Amino acid sequence: MEKLETLFEHIASRINVNLKPMGLDVRPILQNAIPRERHLAYYAFYALTEDHPISFKFTNSNLAGTYFLGKTLVDRSVVYKSNLRGDELKRKGDVVEFNGVKTTLFYDEVIRVINSYLVKTLVHNHSKNPEIPEVFKILNTVAMHYSNIHGTTTEGVYLGPFSTVDFSVMHNCIVGDFSYVQAGDLSRVVIEPGHVWIKVNGSFEFHYVYPEGVVDEYVSLDEHGHVSGKFIEYVDEFKEDFVPVYSTVKPERLELAIGDGSYVSPYSVIKGACTIGPNALIAQRAHIEDSVIGEGSNAQENCYIKDSVYEGFNVTAHGGKVIHTHNGKNVFVGFNSFVHGTESCPITIGKNSIVMPHTIIDAAEPIEIPENSAVWGYITKQSDLETQCMDLDELSNASDLTLGNLTFKGDGKAFVEGFRNRIEHILEENGAYYDGTDDTRGHAQKTQDASFNILQPFQGGKDAGMYPTMTIGE
Amino acid sequence: MEKLETLFEHIASRINVNLKPMGLDVRPILQNAIPRERHLAYYAFYALTEDHPISFKFTNSNLAGTYFLGKTLVDRSVVYKSNLRGDELKRKGDVVEFNGVKTTLFYDEVIRVINSYLVKTLVHNHSKNPEIPEVFKILNTVAMHYSNIHGTTTEGVYLGPFSTVDFSVMHNCIVGDFSYVQAGDLSRVVIEPGHVWIKVNGSFEFHYVYPEGVVDEYVSLDEHGHVSGKFIEYVDEFKEDFVPVYSTVKPERLELAIGDGSYVSPYSVIKGACTIGPNALIAQRAHIEDSVIGEGSNAQENCYIKDSVYEGFNVTAHGGKVIHTHNGKNVFVGFNSFVHGTESCPITIGKNSIVMPHTIIDAAEPIEIPENSAVWGYITKQSDLETQCMDLDELSNASDLTLGNLTFKGDGKAFVEGFRNRIEHILEENGAYYDGTDDTRGHAQKTQDASFNILQPFQGGKDAGMYPTMTIGE
Repeated sequence: MEKLETLFEHIASRINVNLKPMGLDVRPILQNAIPRERHLAYYAFYALTEDHPISFKFTNSNLAGTYFLGKTLVDRSVVYKSNLRGDELKRKGDVVEFNGVKTTLFYDEVIRVINSYLVKTLVHNHSKNPEIPEVFKILNTVAMHYSNIHGTTTEGVYLGPFSTVDFSVMHNCIVGDFSYVQAGDLSRVVIEPGHVWIKVNGSFEFHYVYPEGVVDEYVSLDEHGHVSGKFIEYVDEFKEDFVPVYSTVKPERLELAIGDGSYVSPYSVIKGACTIGPNALIAQRAHIEDSVIGEGSNAQENCYIKDSVYEGFNVTAHGGKVIHTHNGKNVFVGFNSFVHGTESCPITIGKNSIVMPHTIIDAAEPIEIPENSAVWGYITKQSDLETQCMDLDELSNASDLTLGNLTFKGDGKAFVEGFRNRIEHILEENGAYYDGTDDTRGHAQKTQDASFNILQPFQGGKDAGMYPTMTIGE
Repeated sequence: MEKLETLFEHIASRINVNLKPMGLDVRPILQNAIPRERHLAYYAFYALTEDHPISFKFTNSNLAGTYFLGKTLVDRSVVYKSNLRGDELKRKGDVVEFNGVKTTLFYDEVIRVINSYLVKTLVHNHSKNPEIPEVFKILNTVAMHYSNIHGTTTEGVYLGPFSTVDFSVMHNCIVGDFSYVQAGDLSRVVIEPGHVWIKVNGSFEFHYVYPEGVVDEYVSLDEHGHVSGKFIEYVDEFKEDFVPVYSTVKPERLELAIGDGSYVSPYSVIKGACTIGPNALIAQRAHIEDSVIGEGSNAQENCYIKDSVYEGFNVTAHGGKVIHTHNGKNVFVGFNSFVHGTESCPITIGKNSIVMPHTIIDAAEPIEIPENSAVWGYITKQSDLETQCMDLDELSNASDLTLGNLTFKGDGKAFVEGFRNRIEHILEENGAYYDGTDDTRGHAQKTQDASFNILQPFQGGKDAGMYPTMTIGE
């Protein structure tokens, strides 16, 4: 295992060079977060489809349990049980615009993961970095359990567990546990745990801070890289359900009626009595139990949906958890939100509502969210909505406002429209509106014929845990 | 599937250019031998170990169900349920000698399969071609069901089902069903079915021809590429046993006590009550049922061993089938031999005996083969041994002889010693004499830590059935 040990040291040194002076030493986290033998036990897999151009290159790395789709390069990295989904990467010839300046892509975009350590991390979408639009760059980055790197360049970045960086460009930043950041260009910034920060320069800024002590209850990382808290307790309950799925070369879903145009990944779990309507997408590592997934809805990677109803065109972004919840049509649940009802305290969300990324609704009584709402922050009872829920039309008309732990500055209309457009775009990309024409095909349709290739590391000697160099192209 | 169709046409044209004028049109065979959907259904897999240098390159090919170990390149080929085992390839710096001329290997040897169609073919050992010792070349070759390409350069060669080419160099040759050829440099030669031909220029020539009609009963290929006969009927009985083995990512053998230093491939089948002694090797696609495999014995690829005893240091070469047979110590069973006893008509083979490659012993009565014998050809009853069995010392002293359908010319001693040395070499290579020291490690020990990487083709569109280009190195 000498080579794997050397790799851990290498990654730690490349990250510490910038982040240690900022107060973070990643070395003990990397050394202890995952027992070494697990880096040998799990396979990596990449998907082939006729719709996604492929180009994989893996060098000097460990890829345990990780899923790849689309063009990706991994060099000198540990990628553990992550999803690197390059199915929305930009293509050669695409024109990108930033600050009014247009440029054309010279090559297809490639996700490049270099000197990095990703644990159960979701990497998706395309880079919003205008300088090198051909590269979705993840360099010298440590991303902990269930973090999301979504269209963000990360150079010298640490992401705490259950955190998300979204459509940004980050250099030498520390993102605390369960924080969400979508804030353009950031350099040498430390974001404390439990912040939800969305900022578009010259337009608006949304900033919510979790009350002290709350985040710790849900997620906490000790100095040995061990994660605890309600989030991890919840997902760990369902671990065993994935074992048979990952033990079989071609896992097949038997006796499940799914609607036309839908895709249920063979690497997801569907348990109990479920209904999957047409044009729905259930991604790998999603877990659905006793739920109704209506037309055009999607459950993205690391979603847990249980005892819930999705009426249709519902988005659950990466890592969203939805339990004992009735979602009206077009309800959106953002990244890593935890919408946790119970049988006696169910949650109802009216149509067209938006559950912001990184929201916790942990119902201690039945909770009803009106239609056309934005909801955010920490909610356990109906009265919490007073400061953490707002009608979207009202928010659209707002400019500066302070409500509970939220401060909002700037153009409410731009904020709401931006969200609405993005949700619409997600539905389109996922194939929610598929009508048999090529123009309306999305991920649900394009992934139908995927075949999965299973890669395993050396098991013995100094190479144990390392993968051979692999180059895979069309 | 357009690309796969084009590939079939391409391979047919490259082979027909030389073999059609010799009377063989491979096109209808290639078109019909394997239903197209099977080329999509099975995965290929390659093994990583710490002992075998790897370098795989796969381009423009279909690799259904095929196993790779060691350095291999496959280009514009269909390789269906074959074993390409590059674990005895020569290494950079090795010195080879041919006709008294020595040369040093400039690179590690690589198996190169180009413009070829291999069905359930075993490729093993290293090329005996002195011109390019760095390349084990299989070019413009069609090799049908359960054929063996063993250390032989094949350029423009057709191998019928259950045939073997061994340590030769062949240009534009046709090898009939169940023929065995080990005859140095051959060009534009047609070998009719059922010949066993071993020739060393200037030393000896062994030539046995099966009686008319016999081979047809055991193996027959029609013009549509369909194989029938007792051999295929026998192996088809056990097909289902391999399904669970090939359905699991990490097939594991439970509750089987195996001797120290032994290796039982997770891709073999061990059924009923079996005992595996120390330093034994059970290769992938071997099938063992209710048998005792003694110390240092091996069952190579495509072996079927049932209701039999191996006392120790027994070799069963690729494709050997041994049923209701008691083998004394150091008995050798050659390539594709069919040693078929029954409960009421068992076979006993005395110690140190050699069952020549491509021997059929199909017992209609109990048969006892004395120790220290060579046995060959077609045997159904004890009296058949009179013309098809000979004491090895006696054979050693023979020069020219004719016995039944056998003609032997030349130096009997060289023939017997050559065989003995080769058997000894096989035992050493397989690790039969492993005593804990590095020098005595063989395949059984070197493959212990193998991990298997599973590759699948595109499932849809014009690429369906094709594999992406892959380069895999250390």
